[in-house]
Amino acid sequence: MSGGQRMAPQWLERWKGTTLCLVTLCALLMINGCSAADTDITLDAKAAYNHRMQSLDLLIFVGLLSLTVLTIWLFKHHRVSWLHETGLAVIYGLIVGAILRYAGTNKPLVHMQVMPQGVPTYSNKLPPDTLWFQYPVVGNQTNSTKLPEGVKTYAYVFRSQVYDIEENEIDLKATFDPEVFFNIILPPIIFYAGYSLKKKYFFRNLGAILTFAIVGTTLSAFLIGGLMYGCVKLMPKYLSSSFTFLDTLYFGALISPTDPLTILAIFNDLHVDVNLYALVLGESVLNDAVAIVLSGAIQNYGEHYSNSGEFETSAFLRSLSDFFSIFFLSTLIGAVMGCFTALLTKFTRVRDFPLLESALFVLMSYSTFLLAEATELTGVVAVLFCGICQAHYTYNNLSECSRQRTKQIFELLNFLAENFIFSYIGVSMFTFPKHHFDAGFIITAFICAALGRAVNVYPLSWLLNIKRKPKISSNFQHMLFFAGLRGAMSFALAIRNTVSDARQTMLTATSLIVIFTVIIQGGAANFLLNWLKIPVGVDDETEQLNNYQVHSVYNSMDNSHSAPSDGYLQDVEGGGRGKTRLPSGADSNLDTPMDGTATMAVNGGTGRRRNSHEKAILARIWGNFDTKYMKPLLTHSRPTLLETLPVCCNPIARLLTTTQQLTQDGSEFRRVDSDSDICIDNDTGNGLSQDGSLGAVGVGGGSGRRNSINRSNILNETNHIANELSLVTNNFM
Amino acid sequence: MSGGQRMAPQWLERWKGTTLCLVTLCALLMINGCSAADTDITLDAKAAYNHRMQSLDLLIFVGLLSLTVLTIWLFKHHRVSWLHETGLAVIYGLIVGAILRYAGTNKPLVHMQVMPQGVPTYSNKLPPDTLWFQYPVVGNQTNSTKLPEGVKTYAYVFRSQVYDIEENEIDLKATFDPEVFFNIILPPIIFYAGYSLKKKYFFRNLGAILTFAIVGTTLSAFLIGGLMYGCVKLMPKYLSSSFTFLDTLYFGALISPTDPLTILAIFNDLHVDVNLYALVLGESVLNDAVAIVLSGAIQNYGEHYSNSGEFETSAFLRSLSDFFSIFFLSTLIGAVMGCFTALLTKFTRVRDFPLLESALFVLMSYSTFLLAEATELTGVVAVLFCGICQAHYTYNNLSECSRQRTKQIFELLNFLAENFIFSYIGVSMFTFPKHHFDAGFIITAFICAALGRAVNVYPLSWLLNIKRKPKISSNFQHMLFFAGLRGAMSFALAIRNTVSDARQTMLTATSLIVIFTVIIQGGAANFLLNWLKIPVGVDDETEQLNNYQVHSVYNSMDNSHSAPSDGYLQDVEGGGRGKTRLPSGADSNLDTPMDGTATMAVNGGTGRRRNSHEKAILARIWGNFDTKYMKPLLTHSRPTLLETLPVCCNPIARLLTTTQQLTQDGSEFRRVDSDSDICIDNDTGNGLSQDGSLGAVGVGGGSGRRNSINRSNILNETNHIANELSLVTNNFM
Repeated sequence: MSGGQRMAPQWLERWKGTTLCLVTLCALLMINGCSAADTDITLDAKAAYNHRMQSLDLLIFVGLLSLTVLTIWLFKHHRVSWLHETGLAVIYGLIVGAILRYAGTNKPLVHMQVMPQGVPTYSNKLPPDTLWFQYPVVGNQTNSTKLPEGVKTYAYVFRSQVYDIEENEIDLKATFDPEVFFNIILPPIIFYAGYSLKKKYFFRNLGAILTFAIVGTTLSAFLIGGLMYGCVKLMPKYLSSSFTFLDTLYFGALISPTDPLTILAIFNDLHVDVNLYALVLGESVLNDAVAIVLSGAIQNYGEHYSNSGEFETSAFLRSLSDFFSIFFLSTLIGAVMGCFTALLTKFTRVRDFPLLESALFVLMSYSTFLLAEATELTGVVAVLFCGICQAHYTYNNLSECSRQRTKQIFELLNFLAENFIFSYIGVSMFTFPKHHFDAGFIITAFICAALGRAVNVYPLSWLLNIKRKPKISSNFQHMLFFAGLRGAMSFALAIRNTVSDARQTMLTATSLIVIFTVIIQGGAANFLLNWLKIPVGVDDETEQLNNYQVHSVYNSMDNSHSAPSDGYLQDVEGGGRGKTRLPSGADSNLDTPMDGTATMAVNGGTGRRRNSHEKAILARIWGNFDTKYMKPLLTHSRPTLLETLPVCCNPIARLLTTTQQLTQDGSEFRRVDSDSDICIDNDTGNGLSQDGSLGAVGVGGGSGRRNSINRSNILNETNHIANELSLVTNNFM
Repeated sequence: MSGGQRMAPQWLERWKGTTLCLVTLCALLMINGCSAADTDITLDAKAAYNHRMQSLDLLIFVGLLSLTVLTIWLFKHHRVSWLHETGLAVIYGLIVGAILRYAGTNKPLVHMQVMPQGVPTYSNKLPPDTLWFQYPVVGNQTNSTKLPEGVKTYAYVFRSQVYDIEENEIDLKATFDPEVFFNIILPPIIFYAGYSLKKKYFFRNLGAILTFAIVGTTLSAFLIGGLMYGCVKLMPKYLSSSFTFLDTLYFGALISPTDPLTILAIFNDLHVDVNLYALVLGESVLNDAVAIVLSGAIQNYGEHYSNSGEFETSAFLRSLSDFFSIFFLSTLIGAVMGCFTALLTKFTRVRDFPLLESALFVLMSYSTFLLAEATELTGVVAVLFCGICQAHYTYNNLSECSRQRTKQIFELLNFLAENFIFSYIGVSMFTFPKHHFDAGFIITAFICAALGRAVNVYPLSWLLNIKRKPKISSNFQHMLFFAGLRGAMSFALAIRNTVSDARQTMLTATSLIVIFTVIIQGGAANFLLNWLKIPVGVDDETEQLNNYQVHSVYNSMDNSHSAPSDGYLQDVEGGGRGKTRLPSGADSNLDTPMDGTATMAVNGGTGRRRNSHEKAILARIWGNFDTKYMKPLLTHSRPTLLETLPVCCNPIARLLTTTQQLTQDGSEFRRVDSDSDICIDNDTGNGLSQDGSLGAVGVGGGSGRRNSINRSNILNETNHIANELSLVTNNFM
């Protein structure tokens, strides 16, 4: 039978870096006799062996993850705080990697130089897709289709260029194709980050977050790139010659993004100040997106636009436009698909069947990724903004069951993917064959990475503080600096390309930086928070929010088991703060209008009110637009489009307004839209009217239908509603 | 830059049937000039193009699934019963497949015949792992490592044997590697089948189910194999010569298993008689396992054991021992891993962190599959029995949150996988290039498949009815016959191997049989149920069970949205019957002892009691052993091992008994073990004591500690508990 038929499953197979290893065992067993049947059987055995080995590789990682899960539990159980779960995954990975490396031997792959049979008539720009090879080799019979008995033709598929033709490739153990990270591991992580972004605090700190993420990351990338280039040129010849400026710039881009996972898990456990939390989360989520697009643009510059390695204005401009267009279009695709899902869930009653609804949600989210990839955009970025839109709009239309299910599924996927990637970082330090250790480069990289982070945080904070009334205090700045762990994205970008010496050196340095920052900085975060006197523990606002949420969540879910006081369980049950809290409680119509309250908190709560004109114009416009048009269109929220659109558009508005939207009363509304920040109304009470925005109308739902909207009406209504809500909220507590 | 670095993601890439397609576009655009840099860029563009195409392929399927989901909703919304969801997926698949086929053109792959460069010094049993090919081709420079400028070496990886060297392969559109089904699609489906098996009814009908599944499937396979062989020999020469008896036997094995999905979804919606449901579900789940092992054994017989194509006793015996050992060992691995997970969840407090717990559950279940594959066993079979054990033991130890989460996750995975495979069956009818239509063979196959099903059902029912007091009525037999849809497993086995003409003909016939049975039989099931007067609608027992469950589920989940009367929503919320009901309600300590009640129902509820001696000895022994040793060891159920083990083993028993087990009182126990069939106690009331089994003790939990167990004690206690429970249950309702 064919080798293809019992061939290893392809997804496993290619994960091994598309290598096939030689079964010397089989070869030794059957060394005598060389009939065709023998070869068949040996090939079969080899395919089966490969499949076994690949299953074993995966099994190692699954076992590793199970072990990590159990140890995390143990650590949480005993309240160990000096080592975090991702650090744990890395350490376990390192141990297993070392065992794999030194326990077995790597077998070289058998390769053979071939040339075309007969006259090479092939004239194309590309090498052929497949080579056909007759085995055992039988002389030169170009034009015969009738082969001697026992000779078979085997197909070989194009893989890649061979760079070092004197080096034999070895059989890779426990290594996966780097593209696995971009296509399987990162999407759920990034989607979940978007889906669980604490939007309220996120929007409050939007300016700072965007500054840090876009300006900061770019600045950091160029600074690190420049510094590294200078340093590398001072290094021994063999290193300096292999690095171009583009290489170091690429390194700058890949080492700049910070990882949200570890530090946020810690913040989450400790209930750290919400605005610091929002800054760190928002920045690290967005700078992942910036980094991947930036590194892509740098790559394109090197590959397509620049003829020399030197600076060329036109090439630079093209890369720049690449950067912006890819970022913008990816964002657009993500947002459009998110909104489309919201429309689907609003205008169909698919919510009657939660399984179908959840399936639709997952499928639409995944298709966002595929659509972006199919149009040569960046799937990861699209999926991030899709996640944000899904949480902001679609989530409100989902049935309670689907909300929980989607949240839980993506939480689990995120957890598994995150731990997998950190385990893999550990394992690959030993098993990945293309590491290139260079102490000088590594030390320089560490220093430059720290400097890059410093440039990202301090000058930008200073700049922001000029206009920002509630300053980012210096302690917060130190914490921001310290929270700059490097993680999954850096590693994935580094391992994506390891063809040259320079790239391999960069991979090694990146791996070490990730490992070091995750273990050391992650472990020390606790102490530093204490030392910097960052407010930890639940603050007032959070407390109230939690009370409300815990109440509503306890309504919707029977916590028959005892609820430990730890972050994890709370997370899952939606009563906790942070990662998962948002979908049940932080999607607010009041995002922007409430900006004042937010920044106050940063300021230590001294000023209780702020002029609305201080807010960013853009954020205010968007908030308005969102409440007046987007939310009524995409969700069941009030005011309806009938109220916000001009009267002439009534027919269309009626079409786009569901009966549910029209008929719901206040109480039902609150349940449907339970993710509104009701507590905020309570907190700020009558202050709302001074904000003069439409934001709050959506929350109360109003009691009548209005055909034209009028500012003073709204303001009065808002006041009324706010009072009403504060009553309701008090009843809850 | 290298082609490898921006190469398509490997899992996507290999899904395309490991073909690389030629970008004629690029070639045309850049036809002039042939420098190395050009080749690089073209290669890069080609890799990017491949990646795009692969994303697009996946996108097509994801879009197809979304469409299916929406249409299913529409159908359910409008209560359309003549077409079921899987039928819908198939039909959509056919349409899209036809569009793909006729909208585009398939490009042939460019291949080149090669021979070794220089003297072939290679002497191994196997062809080399990789070929190195210099491009553009530069004469014959065997020993030079210094290549002329612009010449690059490309690596080609071994793929498979080429069977027809005159036929050019074409670029495959929207086709995946068959192994994807066995490694990605089938495992979650089969695991979910095991995890949601209605164990109570399953065990009650164990004898019949095993008979149908093992004996019936084998019988059917050999009958179909024999008949087909006879018929094929009467057909035109070209067909009869390409088929061996082993081929037709393989066809018999792959066409024998029935598909649970469609028919059960219908049964589920209609609340069909529970015992018929159990028979169909149990049989179809198990015969999938039997078929995959059986076909593997047949394959092995042909490949390894038999020298001629004729019958050889020794080869036959080896295949037979293969069959049994693989089946047994796979089952064992599944069961052991399931029990191991139960132990982990029992003896750690990982349930305090539901996320960790769910992750552990998923990881352990997946590692069962990998472990079986890594040891050359059948992962699918292992995963089935792992699922059964997880539901039977581990599920009881999980926190409420994890129960829901795991149930929901696997339900969703199952739904997606199931619809994907049926869409793919439709699409591949048009896009898969290795179809071979032969009207004669297809008609014969249809007839033989029906005959095989008949032989599976009628004679075995007759045999079973001899000893079985509650006969399987002839209407039930007709329904069993009619419920023999062919589905995912048949298709997966057929598409796994398409190297020969015979295999391709078999694939086409199988695809058509699957499509026909799923659409026609699936659609007609409703009418037939009516026609055969099979009891549909909720029966008493189910009604009570549902009431209890709905109550407990409503406690644990806020159904704030209105609950439609349809099967799907109920499914998801655990209040429905069928697929998902089991985890929340049908895992019973009373499985075996209650056998009498079950079979009564089949009989129309005439005899209300049956002598326990009529039950299968094996089932009784197992039920006893399970209640006395397995459940106390693996879950928190009562009686504890302290009570069931001899006094001398007390120290060990104490070690294996958790404090929770010892301290729980009745009410807590019921909550923890909420999946017990409390209503059954209520239903059969005092009759329990006549059964004389220990079964019921686990349910009540008892109030004291016993060190030695004593039959009359238990009986009294059982009586007492049963009464107590009936009280409790009444309170619930």
